[in-house]
Order: sequence, then C-alpha cells, then structure tokens
Amino acid sequence: MPATDDVKAFMPGERAALAPLGTGALDGLAFAVKDLFDVAGAATTYGNPDWARTHPVAAATAPVVMELLEAGARLAGKTKTVELAYGLTGENVWYETPLNPNAPDRFPGGSSCGSAAAVAGGLVDFALGSDTGGSVRIPASYCGVFGIRPSWGAISLAGACGLGPSFDTCGWFARSAEVLEKVGVVLLPAGGTQFGPILKAEEAWINAEPATARALVPAMNALEKIAGAPMRIEVAPEGLPVLYEHFRCMQAQEAWATLGSWVAATTPRFGPGVAERFAAARAMDPAKAAAGRAFRRGFRLRIATMLAGGAVMAYPTSPCASPKLTVSLEGQNAVREATMGVTAIAGLGGLCEVSIPVARVDGAPVGLSLVAAAGQDRALLKLAVTLAQDIGLS
Amino acid sequence: MPATDDVKAFMPGERAALAPLGTGALDGLAFAVKDLFDVAGAATTYGNPDWARTHPVAAATAPVVMELLEAGARLAGKTKTVELAYGLTGENVWYETPLNPNAPDRFPGGSSCGSAAAVAGGLVDFALGSDTGGSVRIPASYCGVFGIRPSWGAISLAGACGLGPSFDTCGWFARSAEVLEKVGVVLLPAGGTQFGPILKAEEAWINAEPATARALVPAMNALEKIAGAPMRIEVAPEGLPVLYEHFRCMQAQEAWATLGSWVAATTPRFGPGVAERFAAARAMDPAKAAAGRAFRRGFRLRIATMLAGGAVMAYPTSPCASPKLTVSLEGQNAVREATMGVTAIAGLGGLCEVSIPVARVDGAPVGLSLVAAAGQDRALLKLAVTLAQDIGLS
Repeated sequence: MPATDDVKAFMPGERAALAPLGTGALDGLAFAVKDLFDVAGAATTYGNPDWARTHPVAAATAPVVMELLEAGARLAGKTKTVELAYGLTGENVWYETPLNPNAPDRFPGGSSCGSAAAVAGGLVDFALGSDTGGSVRIPASYCGVFGIRPSWGAISLAGACGLGPSFDTCGWFARSAEVLEKVGVVLLPAGGTQFGPILKAEEAWINAEPATARALVPAMNALEKIAGAPMRIEVAPEGLPVLYEHFRCMQAQEAWATLGSWVAATTPRFGPGVAERFAAARAMDPAKAAAGRAFRRGFRLRIATMLAGGAVMAYPTSPCASPKLTVSLEGQNAVREATMGVTAIAGLGGLCEVSIPVARVDGAPVGLSLVAAAGQDRALLKLAVTLAQDIGLS
Repeated sequence: MPATDDVKAFMPGERAALAPLGTGALDGLAFAVKDLFDVAGAATTYGNPDWARTHPVAAATAPVVMELLEAGARLAGKTKTVELAYGLTGENVWYETPLNPNAPDRFPGGSSCGSAAAVAGGLVDFALGSDTGGSVRIPASYCGVFGIRPSWGAISLAGACGLGPSFDTCGWFARSAEVLEKVGVVLLPAGGTQFGPILKAEEAWINAEPATARALVPAMNALEKIAGAPMRIEVAPEGLPVLYEHFRCMQAQEAWATLGSWVAATTPRFGPGVAERFAAARAMDPAKAAAGRAFRRGFRLRIATMLAGGAVMAYPTSPCASPKLTVSLEGQNAVREATMGVTAIAGLGGLCEVSIPVARVDGAPVGLSLVAAAGQDRALLKLAVTLAQDIGLS
C-alpha cells in the first residue's frame, strides 16, 4: 500500500495510527476511521475546525474502533468527513475534498468521503464511516467499493459524534466482499445465513437513470441464478419523494436537537451549503417531523411484513453515478433529492443495506444494493460474497 | 397539584415550563423531564454544575419532549438527576437529593430521582427519565410509582445526554397504569396487544430478600388469574453476578467513551462516588468489555428464544426496598450489586420492562416487574393496566 495519500483521504497532519491490540479475524488488515469516531489522544474534528477548537482532544477510543484493533487490525489514520456529516457530495472546504480514485472528475460522495476514497485508493483494506441518510452507501456507489449500512442499533455509536440518532449507524467500506464480511463477523451479532426471495423494488428502478438501471442488469441476472427470479414489489406506493420528505424533516429536527446548541453558541464558520442546512434544521416545523414519525411507524410495519422470512430487496444504490465536480448547485440538488428517496428506504426502516460495485456508467462506478430486514446483516453479507464471486468481483 | 415542591424534585431556580403545542391523548396532563433532556432556552445541567457551566444553553427541545407537548401535555419543569446519570441511589450533593415521598427516610433511587419523586409526590402526572442500568426501574420501585424502561431504541434520544449508548433508553413514571400506557401510546410504535405465558425467572426471585419476595405473592397470584400459571425458568444459569459484571464492564467502557473526553478536559467537581465511578470507567480493561459484548450476543439469542411468542417474565424489580438514608457505603454497594444483576437482564437483552408498585415491605414500596421481548412494549403496558386494575391499583 502506498504511504502517500494522493487521494487526500486522510486528515492532514500527524496520523492517528494504532497497532493491533490482539490477533484474530482481521490480522494483517489496515483500516481508517472517519473523523467523527474518537481515537484517544487525537482531536475529533467532525470535519470542521471550530468543532475541533471547541471540543477537547478525545480521552478514549470509541469501542467499535477498539473491537477492530482487538481483532487484529491496524489503524492507519482518520479520514475526512463532510462537516458534521451533513451532506452527500463529500466536499470539505477546510481540509480539501478527497479525490474519487475511480472517477477523478467526480465527487467522492459523502459524508464518509475520506473513508470511501481511502479504500478505493488502496490506502487501507477497510474503513469505518457513518450512515444517517446514505453517508456510507452513496460514497460506496460513487467510489466503486463495497459498503454496508448495518441495521440501526446493531453497532454501538459510543465515542462517535451524532447527527440524527434515530437514523445514525456505523458502517464500513472494503474493496472485496470478503473483507466487508470479515469486519461484519467481528462487529455484528451472529444471525442466520439464510435469505429468502429477491424483491425488485420497482420505484427505485424507475427512479434510476436508464443507463444506470441497464448497467445493473448483468448483476441482477447473476442474482437470479443464486436466489431465483426476483419478485416485483412496490416498496413505496406513495412515491419516493414522500419517503425523502419524511426522512428529511425528522433528520432535520434530530440534527438541530443534537447539534443546534453547539451551532447556536459557537456560530461556527461553515463551508458552502452547511450553514443553510442547519438554518433549515433550526426552522423545521415540528408538525412536519411529527408527521414523519407517524409515517415511519406505518412504514416499518409494512416493510416488516414485506421482508419477513429473509426476503432481500435489490435496487440501484443511487439513481446515477457521481455527479461531475463541475455540476451546478441546481444539478447537485436534483441528484440529492432523487438519491435520498432511495436511501430513505433503509433509513426509515432501520434496515441493513450492502452496496456492491457491480458496474460503470460513462466510466464512473454505480452500485447495486441488497437490502434486508433489521438483524439480517450477516445473511446479507454472505449473499454479497456469493454474488461478488459469481460476477467476478472477488 | 401543589405548586410547592416539598419533595425537592425540581431543579432549583426558574422552572423550564412550556404550554402544550397541540391537543390529543395527553390533554390536561402535566409532566416533568429529567435534567438531561434539552428544553430550548434552559440549561441542561446533567446534574453537575460544571457540566452546566461548560455547555451552552439548549437551543432546541428534545424531539421526545416535543411529542409530549404536541399530544396535549404541559411541561411543568426539569427534575434532578444523579450526576451524569451514573448512580442508583438518587443522591445529588449540588442540587440536594429529592425526598422519597413514599418513604421519606429512604433514598428516592436514581438516576432519575427527581422525576420519580415528582410523580410520587403528586407534582406532575408523569415524568420522563432515562434508564441505562436501572435508572427508571429502581426509582419507580423505591418511590412506589409505575415506571417503564422501553425496548432499547424504541424512542429517539436526540437532544438527551448519553451515558452508555448501547444501553440508554428514554423511560417514564406515572402514578397509574393508565397514564403510563397513555404516554406509551404517544411515544411507542403500535404493536400487538397479545402476550404469552408468564415466566417466573427463578434467579431474580432467589436473589430478592425473602420479605420482598413474599410481599409480591398476591400480585403474582393476580397475574396467574389473568395469564395462567407461571412457568419457572432460569434466565441466567451463570448467575446474576455474571450478568452484572458483563453489564458493568461494557457500561464503563461506553461511559468513558461518551463522557471521558469532557471529564479529562474539565476535571469537574463531583459528589461522593461519582469521581470514583469515572476513574473506574477510565481504567476499564478493554478485554473485559469485549468479553461483555461476546456474552451479550449469546444472551440475546437465548432470551429471544425464551421470550418468543410474547412470553412475559415476572420478577422483583429490585431485591429489596430502598435503603435507608443512614445506610453505610458498604451497605449501599451490596444493594447495588444485588440490584444490578436483576436490572442487567433487560439491559443486556434490550428488553422492555414495566415496574408496578404492588406492595410495601417495612412500610417502603417494592415493585413487581413485567419484562418482555424488544418491541413488545405496548402489549406489556396493556398487561400492566389489567394487572393494576385487578389488584386495585387503578
């Protein structure tokens, strides 16, 4: 692995590096962690200099990082994050936006941009990120690596900065399905390795750009050979924009409840877009967030029935490849809205989702997502390994 | 309701009071919140003056508090908590320990001491607390009120201070099972109202003082009439002390990961015992916490089988009534260890637990707990209402 960080994935300055604390399933692997996980003795910047300035250096290392060290992995450093994890493109004006190693003229995706870039660029074997509204899944799709957003609550977020606690999860990236699964064996409870029928969630396919949907067909065919012909289902008859809207309102309320006191007291300098997002979070109508919670309850009942017995949904992780760095703000917004309608499915449902880098469109990576009920993480990882082998990714 | 706070449940100074934001199931009810939930415009002390001094006044109100206001309830103020919620007796040397209205010569129990006291003293109809290792269940038992620790993850903790994120829950107290349930209807997802057989968890009964176990017999007889003869089960063949030890090690690691950076940077003044608890948390052997996580995974699989189909465990909430205020530190420690072996059952399992104030021992209240699988909260509350009616508590 290159010692240099050409993709600018790591935080600048001295690396927060730690030797393994034990030996086990992750022996010989190097990893990085998004700079919202605490590592004792290092600053946790949360992507923003004023956050770093107003918070003490971490006294403890997040338990999830300890688990990885205890299983034999070596920490290579901390990676860049979008400020306060509130954004999907992966930009960071304070510490420089990481390069997308597999599509250098496009965004890496965020908010776990540095972790995705570090893995895609071969700097580490795997890297921790966090995923509230797509912050692991989207950079995984954009950077052409494997990524998992585990079931909500499956992994403790002690020692990690929060954004929307009822959505926040700790996920990770890898270049192979095998390494993705290995990390899961360490961090996730053992579950069955059985999975049920494949469900082709129609709305997410219709929502995708035609070229993206077409590019995923060979992988869907391979999946059919493994798990039988997919059944078509409607996951969101009300429309993906409705899912996104409910997600957005709840997330905004939680973001302001979690970070608003600091924002109001500190009035931090923010890069483009971030201040606006917090202003919108501050102004969020509580009635809209309440409507979101009511919707989420019904959605969870519906999805539980749909995914009972180990059914696995399959759909494009993102409706398109990463936007070019030159895209207009308007173009960015359109992509975000189309994208978050899809990512809201697992977000609202508390589901686990694995993104598999199965194809390219116009030379840029796009991922296929497998999505299962909460608690099915290990079965989902196993299925991802099988599929990746069948299509020659491993 | 008395305007005066003879039981010293509320935080001193101006009350953080808010009118209802809507009308609904909680119309006409007044509530209080433990002073680790944010209320916009008020300081969140977390029970410690140095916490209050080093944190900005809350800019937002925790979403769970908003939900209660939107359902018609009126916020009457913030209640005292053990410092950083790390303790079970309910003491707070900075703001004065609340009185136990139903046993004035005994501890109120903690860490949600003020909320339990405010409800027991008739100052409010219900009150929010948080429960990591027993901080709602124990003061409910000690103060002779109803209390619920919901399933882990069922209620968002956005805008609330954390202690051990993989154990932290938002619970509440009420003087009647009906009000306890009403709040649950607002905050908890709808679930079945079906429950299965009653399981008498042997270890928790053997662990209880004989007088406490005897005092609970009439309530158990009433439960038998409702739900059939209880089946005896072993919930912890390895012994409750083993459960407590695993819980303690994991909680300590998470507590230091969550609060250690602040403790190390601030070196706050702490009341008796609290500094020692954080010193122990700082020194926690990571291998012990890792062993705890491994144990928890196995325990959850075992308990899931045991509680499948809606089975409900019944056992003493605490092994004894609240210790007298004059008890020695040694006596306090012995009670804590015996108590937390029992509270660790729901803690490790992520289970929901309702404590019902069914009896008195030596004039002091003791609670009977009903404990069910994660997600069974609404069914459990329904069962609590039925039992309370049958034994004349409603």
